[in-house]
Amino acid sequence: MLDCAIIGGGPAGLTAGLYTTRGGLANVTMFEKGMPGGQITGSSEIENYPGVTGEITGMDLMMPWPEQCQRFGLKHAMVEVMKVDHNDDGSFTIHKGDGTSEDALSVIIATGSTPKRAGFKGEDELFGKGVSTCATCDGFFYKGKEVAVIGGGDTALEEAVYLSNICSKVYIVHRRETFRAAPNTIKRVMDTENIELILNATPEEVYGDKMGVNGIKINTPEGLLDLQVPGVFTFVGMNVNNDVLKKEDGTFICDVNEAGEVIVNLRMRTSVPGLYAAGDIRIDAPKQVVAAAGDGAVAAVNVIPYVDEVKNSREK
Amino acid sequence: MLDCAIIGGGPAGLTAGLYTTRGGLANVTMFEKGMPGGQITGSSEIENYPGVTGEITGMDLMMPWPEQCQRFGLKHAMVEVMKVDHNDDGSFTIHKGDGTSEDALSVIIATGSTPKRAGFKGEDELFGKGVSTCATCDGFFYKGKEVAVIGGGDTALEEAVYLSNICSKVYIVHRRETFRAAPNTIKRVMDTENIELILNATPEEVYGDKMGVNGIKINTPEGLLDLQVPGVFTFVGMNVNNDVLKKEDGTFICDVNEAGEVIVNLRMRTSVPGLYAAGDIRIDAPKQVVAAAGDGAVAAVNVIPYVDEVKNSREK
Repeated sequence: MLDCAIIGGGPAGLTAGLYTTRGGLANVTMFEKGMPGGQITGSSEIENYPGVTGEITGMDLMMPWPEQCQRFGLKHAMVEVMKVDHNDDGSFTIHKGDGTSEDALSVIIATGSTPKRAGFKGEDELFGKGVSTCATCDGFFYKGKEVAVIGGGDTALEEAVYLSNICSKVYIVHRRETFRAAPNTIKRVMDTENIELILNATPEEVYGDKMGVNGIKINTPEGLLDLQVPGVFTFVGMNVNNDVLKKEDGTFICDVNEAGEVIVNLRMRTSVPGLYAAGDIRIDAPKQVVAAAGDGAVAAVNVIPYVDEVKNSREK
Repeated sequence: MLDCAIIGGGPAGLTAGLYTTRGGLANVTMFEKGMPGGQITGSSEIENYPGVTGEITGMDLMMPWPEQCQRFGLKHAMVEVMKVDHNDDGSFTIHKGDGTSEDALSVIIATGSTPKRAGFKGEDELFGKGVSTCATCDGFFYKGKEVAVIGGGDTALEEAVYLSNICSKVYIVHRRETFRAAPNTIKRVMDTENIELILNATPEEVYGDKMGVNGIKINTPEGLLDLQVPGVFTFVGMNVNNDVLKKEDGTFICDVNEAGEVIVNLRMRTSVPGLYAAGDIRIDAPKQVVAAAGDGAVAAVNVIPYVDEVKNSREK
């Protein structure tokens, strides 16, 4: 029986591993089928992780984490987790992709969320080199320059307003005539002088070279438009990686919001005792490395007394 | 009028400064009367800030932060803040120690909290060299060793249980015969084999040398007891640094809990629009650098759209 099973090996999961093991839990496994490090390892430049300066890639930023986080005894199981069951006795069962399972007294779910791709040509090739899904992360790299935002929902419009404070001009490329967003957000977009709308339009192809994006070609009612911008931000939805929490009837083992994000309190507790969430999978996450890592620490310091208490009561 | 006033220059305040300015707020000042860096600069060794490895002091850990956080335009006002007023028009006035004041559209309060000293001989001299107020931070340095815990409240007992998972033995030194703590916590202490109680006892003197603490002398009903332990953890209460939020009638400008900690939600919003809190001053804070920094990022990404909106509505 594991003291704690950590699902996911990004900044949240790694930090949860560091704090649980360093805090005295003897038997903690982090389940991560790939190399630890998370989504950020796909980023070409990070300058907002406090304390780590210089021009650094996401890969370089995360390089020292696994060793640091594993030196206190965290085990890494390189296997996919298919499903987490909440058992009648309060424990959890982790069903693994190899068909076997492990039991755990507590679980920290840190599987994150993945931005959806818009699906135009060049998007994958230039992702992280001018194509971005995070204005907070990458907006500043286009200070004083023009950028395109793809999408027409709340997030797209909010991020467009955010970018308008940094960039000289923001084009919003949206496939419909109208926006599906909060009226107040739409109003703010309309009130912002350096935002220009390109409606009834779909991206055809983003193009560039080794240095990054040079522009994006857009199908519009007036024909093909060539926007020569160095940055393209796509906001066409998120896949919350919550499949492992899904029961067979399609409901979840813990409370989630309408977007499927796990509902937590300030201690990262979910609605299920012993189940904690950390990082991008939880509600209101800013989707930043330092915040995900903070979540991992918070979840861990709250898991430890929980596990102590459960063990104590089980011994009787 | 400042876009945002950040009060406090520890990990939370610095990171809030990084994210607000990098996120496009043009006019942000961090008020910190001393050198930025915060309480952690008094620690002799940190090994749990993710991504920063090796034997590093708190001072070294925080060394690169001010420059990194200020390169996007954050201003540092080296002045004490006496009081923050919430004005009728929704803005804030920052009253400074030099008698002048500044107005701000939003405020991030990140003044932290300070552990109280127990008041025995040698405590100050050996603080950070064997005398600690944080089990999560320093417990691991005494793995397999004996430590003393000074205090008898909830925190002292909870931290003693935490330390009992790491240390070979934990002595709880408490000045009374009984504990003022939750019955369940007391029960867990009683059930833990490697915790020993020393009651009706007060610390006389902690002693040591350049290498750190060698032991602590304790006044007990049976006479002076010499506990030869390398670690002494004091938990005799916290001073929450919330004075700047106090009104003249002694109430606070925003909701606080019974301990005086600022009540926030997952976006670090307080009960007052435009006022955010980050780090150790808020409820449920784990008092860890990475979590405080995460809070600063969260507060900042939520302040930015707030300020945008207020500016937008003021322009009309």
